[in-house]
Amino acid sequence: MDNKKIVVIGGGTGTYTVLSGLKNHPVDLSAIVTMADDGGSTGVLRHELGVLPPGDVRQCLVALSEAPETLRDLFLYRFEHGALAGHNFGNLFLSAMEKVTGHFEDAVLTAGKVLNIKGRVIPVSTEPMVLMAEYEDGRVVVGEHNIDAGGTLSVPEPTLSVGGKIRKIFLEHEARASFAAVDAIMGADLVILSAGDLYTSLIPNLLATGIIEALRRTPAKVAYIVNLMTKRGETDGFGAYDFVAELEKYLGPNMIDIVCVNTGIPTPEMQALYIEEDERVVSPDLEKFAGKRIKVVSGDFVSQIVFEKNATDKLRRSLLRHDSEKLAKTFLDLI
Amino acid sequence: MDNKKIVVIGGGTGTYTVLSGLKNHPVDLSAIVTMADDGGSTGVLRHELGVLPPGDVRQCLVALSEAPETLRDLFLYRFEHGALAGHNFGNLFLSAMEKVTGHFEDAVLTAGKVLNIKGRVIPVSTEPMVLMAEYEDGRVVVGEHNIDAGGTLSVPEPTLSVGGKIRKIFLEHEARASFAAVDAIMGADLVILSAGDLYTSLIPNLLATGIIEALRRTPAKVAYIVNLMTKRGETDGFGAYDFVAELEKYLGPNMIDIVCVNTGIPTPEMQALYIEEDERVVSPDLEKFAGKRIKVVSGDFVSQIVFEKNATDKLRRSLLRHDSEKLAKTFLDLI
Repeated sequence: MDNKKIVVIGGGTGTYTVLSGLKNHPVDLSAIVTMADDGGSTGVLRHELGVLPPGDVRQCLVALSEAPETLRDLFLYRFEHGALAGHNFGNLFLSAMEKVTGHFEDAVLTAGKVLNIKGRVIPVSTEPMVLMAEYEDGRVVVGEHNIDAGGTLSVPEPTLSVGGKIRKIFLEHEARASFAAVDAIMGADLVILSAGDLYTSLIPNLLATGIIEALRRTPAKVAYIVNLMTKRGETDGFGAYDFVAELEKYLGPNMIDIVCVNTGIPTPEMQALYIEEDERVVSPDLEKFAGKRIKVVSGDFVSQIVFEKNATDKLRRSLLRHDSEKLAKTFLDLI
Repeated sequence: MDNKKIVVIGGGTGTYTVLSGLKNHPVDLSAIVTMADDGGSTGVLRHELGVLPPGDVRQCLVALSEAPETLRDLFLYRFEHGALAGHNFGNLFLSAMEKVTGHFEDAVLTAGKVLNIKGRVIPVSTEPMVLMAEYEDGRVVVGEHNIDAGGTLSVPEPTLSVGGKIRKIFLEHEARASFAAVDAIMGADLVILSAGDLYTSLIPNLLATGIIEALRRTPAKVAYIVNLMTKRGETDGFGAYDFVAELEKYLGPNMIDIVCVNTGIPTPEMQALYIEEDERVVSPDLEKFAGKRIKVVSGDFVSQIVFEKNATDKLRRSLLRHDSEKLAKTFLDLI
């Protein structure tokens, strides 16, 4: 019997975690990755070289890599000195290869071979995406990095911080979904909408034209992993139900079949680190799901590993992560 | 029967050419490469990251690569914009990997695997080499790049150009030969001292402590490929015999068994391009070798391919190159 086909949609640390667990099991894995990142090394490369954003792809490639550890470390290596400072080697690999071949998808395939990845990493689009956020007070912020930072550039007036709630997230101009992304979704047994930044990692994927239609038409079950923690400037005060409700604004109703909700409680010390940044444990809201058609899988999904703060983009704030093996087993039981 | 073991010593375009030809034949190939380069992208990486110079190694790796063309192109790719401008991807690979593993030799091995190389590339030393040149007028120039450029920094007085003849080339401080380099020479059937810049690509290898002793003790025959053209500021007016005599100053007498001398004449148009830069066809000097113990292999070794000028370091001036296949066949006949 062929392995079950699982597609994980996202970008960033949440997706890294989900993929890291699933790759140790006999499944056919694909990761569909946002092309909206424009911060840090990725932002510089987009701007200076005119390439597609490599950062999220690089993280997924490393998550799926079965190459020796030094090669995985190489792709995560960040130059610390001189003009190269801040650039990540994996990003440079993908961007240089895109320049050489003219195609980002070829660059991703080659990097995947070098890293001996299990499965596939698929850019959600081969067109660059520019993310826009409209806040409740009417301000509009341009760019994933600025939205991620709570809004640092707004139209018409630049401000240091927006702070308000996001009313809507959208693209500056249309980006069509890649054929490979649509194909993967249509052929999947299970599609996982990954934990991670809701507005800046997950939803951007849904904004590529064709993705939502594919999710609507695929015979696959669609699961969603709710975040462990809220994120300042994006999901302040959100409970699990709010995450799902927000996602359904983009997906449409009744698209999520399964929701994976954490009921574990991080240590007080760990929570304190998040509280410093105005971030809280996401309330499971299990009662709010009662009577709905969504199947709720709840449990303690908090990893016991404490992840160190580091300078790698996207990983900075993710001290707490899902237990990747527990997630993997949960999903394997569902298919 | 095991394949014959051939070791090519050098760096730069000359070595690239020799390796490119030999790799298509059933021989066991090793390239021993200088660690004295300090110009261009390589120089910046040495200075900013404190790594060993990757440029010459990168060229040899690509010469020996049997990977798909895009991967070889990737390693030769040079960033053109922004802060990365001028950096060569292959250099960044080697330097990042050296940072990750702490060992340049590991970086070279990993790059060799990624590039699927035939044979081995061996840094002549795992200690950085700082090249010094003393000119006939007594001035001393520090650094391979400055010597290569005809001398741009001299002690005690900086000058734009030295111009005079090089009296002696030496290292600022001792660099011991790597075990791998000594082993390769001791186990070889044939050692080829490669065409290329005499003072800045070939001789620096001989300055690593242990190399000359290995060349003296190895049972291998030692061959030397004389350059096609003189080089301004280094070998002005040299004939083939002068190249050999100069090399013997460093090697000691009777160390070269075979000398490969070009008697072909480049087209007048091609010669004119070199004459613009005060560079001339190296006179074969065949009569001067008469009666010596050195076996002279002479013939038309000029490649019919016209190599384009490009921005890649070391390749800039090498419009004319040896015919790599003709060289390879010549050497295979000798062993």
